[in-house]
Amino acid sequence: MLLIGERINGMFKATREAIQKQDKAAIQDLARRQMEGGAHMLDVNVGPAAADRREEAEMMKWLVTTVQEAVNLPLSLDSTKAEVIEAGLKVHKGKAMINSTKAEPKMLEDYLSLTKEYGTMLVGLAIDEKGIPRDADGRAEVGARIVMAAMEKGIPVEDIYLDPIILPVNVTQETAPIVIESIKAFKLLSDPAPKTIIGLSNVSQKASNRLLINRTYMVMCTAAGLDAAILDTLDKDLIDAVITAELLMNKNIYCDSFLEAYRKSSVRAA
Amino acid sequence: MLLIGERINGMFKATREAIQKQDKAAIQDLARRQMEGGAHMLDVNVGPAAADRREEAEMMKWLVTTVQEAVNLPLSLDSTKAEVIEAGLKVHKGKAMINSTKAEPKMLEDYLSLTKEYGTMLVGLAIDEKGIPRDADGRAEVGARIVMAAMEKGIPVEDIYLDPIILPVNVTQETAPIVIESIKAFKLLSDPAPKTIIGLSNVSQKASNRLLINRTYMVMCTAAGLDAAILDTLDKDLIDAVITAELLMNKNIYCDSFLEAYRKSSVRAA
Repeated sequence: MLLIGERINGMFKATREAIQKQDKAAIQDLARRQMEGGAHMLDVNVGPAAADRREEAEMMKWLVTTVQEAVNLPLSLDSTKAEVIEAGLKVHKGKAMINSTKAEPKMLEDYLSLTKEYGTMLVGLAIDEKGIPRDADGRAEVGARIVMAAMEKGIPVEDIYLDPIILPVNVTQETAPIVIESIKAFKLLSDPAPKTIIGLSNVSQKASNRLLINRTYMVMCTAAGLDAAILDTLDKDLIDAVITAELLMNKNIYCDSFLEAYRKSSVRAA
Repeated sequence: MLLIGERINGMFKATREAIQKQDKAAIQDLARRQMEGGAHMLDVNVGPAAADRREEAEMMKWLVTTVQEAVNLPLSLDSTKAEVIEAGLKVHKGKAMINSTKAEPKMLEDYLSLTKEYGTMLVGLAIDEKGIPRDADGRAEVGARIVMAAMEKGIPVEDIYLDPIILPVNVTQETAPIVIESIKAFKLLSDPAPKTIIGLSNVSQKASNRLLINRTYMVMCTAAGLDAAILDTLDKDLIDAVITAELLMNKNIYCDSFLEAYRKSSVRAA
């Protein structure tokens, strides 16, 4: 499981303030702690910290440089604006992830072009002009369009991460099982298959027992074959649950200290 | 999910001593606490508490009567000896579960006869004369023989609980994913489908992080469509995980107090 830390995001108040004040120590501390918690990559999202598009691009550049000064990890550059993504890519070291494009023709073309030019991975959302499809078949159909467009550009399918879009369980409870079916459906779209990803915390947005819901759903998605998640790697119980689920899928080898062993090998790999 | 409390079992030292001393208060307290923890049924197993077959039958009778005096729950009568099961069935109130038969012709015939005569449920293990099949297909084949034998006797398929046999993850790690595949395969054997069941705690036998392994595996099996489990309902985190997994499968309705709501409705149903 590719674990991507979610916390460097202007949606979080403390992070937003750190970005606005260019508080390097705070951002670098957050980067280090997420890596120590098990992150293989870190998502960076200026979000509402920027007043406009130009400022967002500047802040993205600053974030990428600041974070990669502190940790030797690739980043997931998170913005709905291609120019902000590109500003980050220009200073990024290693193989980045672009997060994310919808299946709308213009946006998809722009984001695939960046993916190709910079040799990155790309998150493709199961959303098009008509919105989010109701069921897993509809999501797979949108996913297929993203995969085909990537193939036409000569982008390796394994670099495409399809996101079925999880919605809060307290708002639309039927989405949780549909997303699990979508993960399985995405894996059947091509051979080799595209990768799959979710933004985990959304499932428990404004719900009670958030951490319990997050880790339970993460185990369910892991069992369904999920490849990657953007999640809170500061949540030790959550990461323990992922490691244990992969153990029980026979993906890691059991030893009495399997939690520590995974974390150590994971840090080595990163 | 049908939750069956595992603790009234002579394998546990304290329970064994309580059975041998006929300590009614201790057994009844254990029964009540398991029910309060979320059990819909309780497994009762004399196990090594008895010196011989006759004593085991007497102890089973005493256990059934003692437990049902304290809690208004049906029981899962757990023994490898048909005469012990029958001794318990004779005094049992409500619809019992017989736990369990292998797919060996003589044992299967004896246990199915009791199932038919007393109108009970029956746990059928994916084991035959040759042992436990290696893979999910082999387990499904053994399960199919049990289902067919039950049908021939006119026993409703929904009363058959097939158990794919989980083994300790520290001994045979490949079994955990095979059991999950088996649960899915069992559900395809007939229409209506047989039920599926596991004895959860076996997955973590002598492993480290037992409770974490138990609850993670239980979530994975729940997501695969498991119908019932014999497990430790005194483990609150485990039961919370099951409730949350069913919530995320859209089987319970979300409310902010979904854990408490499930427990209350569960007690009402029992």
